[in-house]
Amino acid sequence: MLALRSLCPLAIAALVTTPAFAQSPPTPPSADLSTAAATLRDEAMRGSGAYAILRSLTVEVGPRSAGSQGDRAAVTWALAQMQDAGLDNVHAESVMVPHWERGSVELRVVEPYPQKLTAVALGGSIGTDDNGLEAPVLEVADLAELASLPDRVVRGTIVYFSARMERTRDGAGYVKAVVARSDGPSAASRRGAVAMLMRSAGTSTSRVAHTGATHYDPDVTPIPALALAHADADLLEEELASGTPVVAHLQLSSRTLAPARSANVVGEIRGRGPGIVLLGAHLDSWDLGTGAIDDGAGVAIVLASAKLLSSRREQLAHTVRVTLFANEEFGLSGAKTYAADHGDELAHHMLGLEADFGSAHVWRLDSRVDEAALPVVTSIYDALAPLGVERGGNEAHGGADLGPMKDLGMPVLDLMQDGTHYFDIHHTMDDTLDKVQGSDLDQVVAAFATATYIAAATGTDFGRLPPPPPKAP
Amino acid sequence: MLALRSLCPLAIAALVTTPAFAQSPPTPPSADLSTAAATLRDEAMRGSGAYAILRSLTVEVGPRSAGSQGDRAAVTWALAQMQDAGLDNVHAESVMVPHWERGSVELRVVEPYPQKLTAVALGGSIGTDDNGLEAPVLEVADLAELASLPDRVVRGTIVYFSARMERTRDGAGYVKAVVARSDGPSAASRRGAVAMLMRSAGTSTSRVAHTGATHYDPDVTPIPALALAHADADLLEEELASGTPVVAHLQLSSRTLAPARSANVVGEIRGRGPGIVLLGAHLDSWDLGTGAIDDGAGVAIVLASAKLLSSRREQLAHTVRVTLFANEEFGLSGAKTYAADHGDELAHHMLGLEADFGSAHVWRLDSRVDEAALPVVTSIYDALAPLGVERGGNEAHGGADLGPMKDLGMPVLDLMQDGTHYFDIHHTMDDTLDKVQGSDLDQVVAAFATATYIAAATGTDFGRLPPPPPKAP
Repeated sequence: MLALRSLCPLAIAALVTTPAFAQSPPTPPSADLSTAAATLRDEAMRGSGAYAILRSLTVEVGPRSAGSQGDRAAVTWALAQMQDAGLDNVHAESVMVPHWERGSVELRVVEPYPQKLTAVALGGSIGTDDNGLEAPVLEVADLAELASLPDRVVRGTIVYFSARMERTRDGAGYVKAVVARSDGPSAASRRGAVAMLMRSAGTSTSRVAHTGATHYDPDVTPIPALALAHADADLLEEELASGTPVVAHLQLSSRTLAPARSANVVGEIRGRGPGIVLLGAHLDSWDLGTGAIDDGAGVAIVLASAKLLSSRREQLAHTVRVTLFANEEFGLSGAKTYAADHGDELAHHMLGLEADFGSAHVWRLDSRVDEAALPVVTSIYDALAPLGVERGGNEAHGGADLGPMKDLGMPVLDLMQDGTHYFDIHHTMDDTLDKVQGSDLDQVVAAFATATYIAAATGTDFGRLPPPPPKAP
Repeated sequence: MLALRSLCPLAIAALVTTPAFAQSPPTPPSADLSTAAATLRDEAMRGSGAYAILRSLTVEVGPRSAGSQGDRAAVTWALAQMQDAGLDNVHAESVMVPHWERGSVELRVVEPYPQKLTAVALGGSIGTDDNGLEAPVLEVADLAELASLPDRVVRGTIVYFSARMERTRDGAGYVKAVVARSDGPSAASRRGAVAMLMRSAGTSTSRVAHTGATHYDPDVTPIPALALAHADADLLEEELASGTPVVAHLQLSSRTLAPARSANVVGEIRGRGPGIVLLGAHLDSWDLGTGAIDDGAGVAIVLASAKLLSSRREQLAHTVRVTLFANEEFGLSGAKTYAADHGDELAHHMLGLEADFGSAHVWRLDSRVDEAALPVVTSIYDALAPLGVERGGNEAHGGADLGPMKDLGMPVLDLMQDGTHYFDIHHTMDDTLDKVQGSDLDQVVAAFATATYIAAATGTDFGRLPPPPPKAP
């Protein structure tokens, strides 16, 4: 049953357009198909080609943050890669993206013990004026502690959020840590702070700070916002522990330019019917590294998967559509544009899979499909089990870029990759090719290609799913 | 027997001044002394205080490269620390040191694929002019490959040394890798190169480049010299592998200022006789990190050891002298000045121990003493064995700062620390307090304090040793 309340008209249109081939119940793949799936899986494991694609992207394009020259180069690169992989209907779909420039930063403690600090601006941060700013530092653990302090304590300070991110396999630690990054600048500004610092929302033991998008609520005065490397957060806390006031000087030349044009890059392996299995990753990256694990790995995984599937196109009932989304990092304008541009067609999106959690192996299969389709998920699980993949539940997340489509009812599979070390690298200057093992990528491609193949070859209707419940306020 | 040829007059003076108390043969410590040594060792293991000293140095002083404001602050800090530790005769001994400023660097590939590269100037490098320089990059593995190339191939290029350092426990990989750093700039300049790059002489898997001193032979035109982080060396090599010429642009504002005044900081625990056991570490650091493992750890180890010994001063026959040397990194002017200033007294330097290999545990005891004194080394080994220390040979190196004294006949002990991970951090911006485990430091202090105690309490004459054989040309 679908809960229609709170759905937008577009969603309702999508939900009522039930494709004809969905009228027969989903059937698990035949023994022949299982054998073919195993052959595909093993072919990927012998060498998927994903590492070579990733090397090409990181070396020939490199950093590609939304709106940058690298972003434009990445679109050109992706179109050529899809042509080379033998995809059909290769094209770019225009997307407007924010354009922010990092500029340079100088942050130092001036009292009590002069020390330079390694910091990076959060994405979207404003800069200081040319003279910079100088103010006492106020340490709070988190937003709750900030809220508990009187205005007179906060006013005129640089608020520093000190909570440390927990290392987890599934990224739960990041979800918790990132709240200060998104909401901290506005919360601090609203209380009269002149700048905001935070301990990096990452787990690196090296002196690399972790960037990522922030935003300013409409009612606040924007203030500069930066993250400190852990060693520098430690150093700042040691200075604060000395008991004397700690004063810092900050100079930052970050700025936001006019929005720029980028593109979602799309290519297909055409199936016999109108159904679509969407394979997503994002083409943009942060500017600090070369975007190897975020999300060059995802780009390589879906392109290598598509290339393996392209030699099996005559077996596919559904079309496999690879979409490399623009601008995941700065507000998902690529995904939102895709959902808006493909309105009527979204009802034919039978299933979505997204690769945006690095290059480490897949360890669990989660789904979010109609219960009637679970036997097909079981068949997919059976094909992935030899890769060391566990069976998860039926409450998959789907990934950030699939979000707008999932909200409109699209079922999803999560091929959960091991995130234990992902946040050592993610959003830092350490996001480079040397952190990736080609053999890990091959396992991930084996999982993505095999799951996609079974879904597309069986022509399964995975149903339409109600949007996930709204977040607690 | 001593080989007197090739010794300088100072050395001969030192060698002929045989102290009176050396006429009786060395005797191993008594059972009482062994018990006292074990008590000292175990006291250190329960908490040596070294970590707190290191925290103070890295937080309150921080980077302290020769000639810098931090260098001067470190001298003041060290004098206060020695007073606090209850040492005798605490004083500074003036040393002239080079003064080099790193400035800022921008290095990028402009063809075929534009990419920024993370690099750091080698210590002593000249800068470029304000417009920078732009030239094709020529990759060679090492000095031998450079020597094999015709001048016309090298002229006008940026020579890049690509050999990768090997990870070893004892630092042997570094000794091999560092040749390109010291001799590469002159070798490249002599062949007409306009700049020199090298893969970092370090083992970090993070995007931090490794600095360290270089020099220019008198007959060459100085050229800018830098080290690349491994990820950037990889990226450069991928561009070079593309087969098209790789052109790089470099802008560097490094410069050498007038020599500055610094100091060796000296304090003692006075023994009954004229003999001296020298405990050395160096006070200067590189500028990129806070000098936690190089050589803040060594400073903390010798100061904590001295503090433990200060409550046992009435048991000491030899004086224990802690010397925190100025300017180890830029040519050992602190150690050379010490040797020159203490000429006549060097004959009383019974033994030297140096702590300059990080914060990891001691795993082996090497010595370089007269064979007649080896029974005392065995006693020291017996006291250290419960710490997991192995017995090594009698060809100890002695460390860089002890070099001038060792060359004049001073015996040495090496308490070899595990260097497996030392070069992940050494000479990079990652040389910060968070990399140090206090419990590791306690073990190292236990070893240093116990060895020093046995040597000083027994009043052993460890002999005078011939200088080590000259290096092969």
